[in-house]
Amino acid sequence: MLKLWHQGAKKLEFEKALAKRALVINEALELYLPPANAYPPLIHQAMRYSIKGGGKRLRPVLVMAVAETVGGRVQEVMPAACALEMIHTYSLIHDDLPSIDDDDYRRGKPTSHKIYGEAIAVLAGDALLTLAFSLLAESGRSSPDKIVKVIGEVASAAGTYGMIGGQVVDIFSAGESIPISTLEYIHKYKTGALYRAAVRTGAILAGAEEGQLADLTCFAEQLGLAFQIIDDILDVEGDAAVIGKPVGSDVKNKKVTYPSVFGLKEARAKAEQAAAEALTALERFGGEADFLRQLIRFVINRRR
Amino acid sequence: MLKLWHQGAKKLEFEKALAKRALVINEALELYLPPANAYPPLIHQAMRYSIKGGGKRLRPVLVMAVAETVGGRVQEVMPAACALEMIHTYSLIHDDLPSIDDDDYRRGKPTSHKIYGEAIAVLAGDALLTLAFSLLAESGRSSPDKIVKVIGEVASAAGTYGMIGGQVVDIFSAGESIPISTLEYIHKYKTGALYRAAVRTGAILAGAEEGQLADLTCFAEQLGLAFQIIDDILDVEGDAAVIGKPVGSDVKNKKVTYPSVFGLKEARAKAEQAAAEALTALERFGGEADFLRQLIRFVINRRR
Repeated sequence: MLKLWHQGAKKLEFEKALAKRALVINEALELYLPPANAYPPLIHQAMRYSIKGGGKRLRPVLVMAVAETVGGRVQEVMPAACALEMIHTYSLIHDDLPSIDDDDYRRGKPTSHKIYGEAIAVLAGDALLTLAFSLLAESGRSSPDKIVKVIGEVASAAGTYGMIGGQVVDIFSAGESIPISTLEYIHKYKTGALYRAAVRTGAILAGAEEGQLADLTCFAEQLGLAFQIIDDILDVEGDAAVIGKPVGSDVKNKKVTYPSVFGLKEARAKAEQAAAEALTALERFGGEADFLRQLIRFVINRRR
Repeated sequence: MLKLWHQGAKKLEFEKALAKRALVINEALELYLPPANAYPPLIHQAMRYSIKGGGKRLRPVLVMAVAETVGGRVQEVMPAACALEMIHTYSLIHDDLPSIDDDDYRRGKPTSHKIYGEAIAVLAGDALLTLAFSLLAESGRSSPDKIVKVIGEVASAAGTYGMIGGQVVDIFSAGESIPISTLEYIHKYKTGALYRAAVRTGAILAGAEEGQLADLTCFAEQLGLAFQIIDDILDVEGDAAVIGKPVGSDVKNKKVTYPSVFGLKEARAKAEQAAAEALTALERFGGEADFLRQLIRFVINRRR
């Protein structure tokens, strides 16, 4: 079982480090996105609106932190890190569409289609996905063979055997009685696949060895699972004002979640078990993986 | 002015060659698409439905033909050729959505959202775009630096400074009085950018020299323009049964087109001028570019 975070000072220090990284990522995103007044402006404004409404930037943070863990340089993975955030954002824009989850708010702000209309929301999602591959292809100083490998990884993780597959199963499971294996499939692919791809992207670009890559992949899978279970738990017991969207939406939408299947207590135990396994996967690393270790605790203890 | 196609036998021969290439592409697409029963099946069925409803496969044919023209091998560019067709198909699925063009039929068959519902249509488009980049990254025997260059080209052509940009301007120009420069922008980007990318993809992967690449790019731009003007003309004077969708939809939707601005006669003259320039751009090539030359005539003379 993972020892919970008792040291308040250390926690505060980590949250500052996390916020600092998010700031660096925001600056890079600003740089990589087309200017708001570039022709045709409306689509660029819509892309920027949803990226700016972003949250903790956990996926690009993972790309950066993993690259550093295996001795790479942050600057070299910034385009790829931002690409992962763009793919995450595109998936949120499309998930929120009236024909899919029909959500009016995301992180306390109106969703893209509420501001720009549905046509532009569809196209802004398409455009962020496309721009992500532009960025990956222009991953600065990395060698072409690494870039090609990363593009393959990311495209596969974002596709129908990854994120889109998870989303499809999630849509058709709402209101249905599904087996636990289906719940696990949704978690593994809808959110897990992109975490995994973020970690592997950072590792591959920074030149990780096979053994390191395998352990970091295991870390990513368990971290993603812990993150998603906590997400489900927060939807039940979270504070709407803190989370920025109405809580209880999973219950309302009759979604099968870890808490609905296992109860809150066992769901939390499962999240902590996943976190412990993520920690174990980092055993081969020394202090250079401390940020990743703290990230696990942060994911488990987060309130939003 | 381009000499029109008087030799019936030669025309028939070319159309057979074109159909043969389309067949090869269809077989490759069949291979590259996930099986219809792969989990989750609905999304894979939707992807296959729209790909199978495909038309002349002109974009992948261009990738193949250009590669051959500069001495490359067709097998090596097949994944990239199919990727271009997937991007084209994704753009059609999203364009047809109720929130965008709201089209119920495409090539005589119900559109994706009429069969699978809007949520799956959105995601099937997303999935085809994503799979296209998977395929490009796995472009077989090409060197990684060429693959990275091609991914950059294709992503750029499909993005907001390319196809999506053209689509956005097209949406917001419907029913408006727009200057000719805007009409040209729409044509250049909404359809032209992907033709250009198809040609450059074939040329780059096959190792074209700089001069060849420049000339082929010029050929692609003029061919794309000719294609689009003819498309506009067929919407006015075409036969609905041959085209597979209702004609007159541009007039109904108050779209600004070449015929609506210049009249049918001058629009056709402009298409022929573009075709003549495309032909001129091929001057450096010998018989190895004959298929491309015949393709120009085919585009100009097509009835659908």
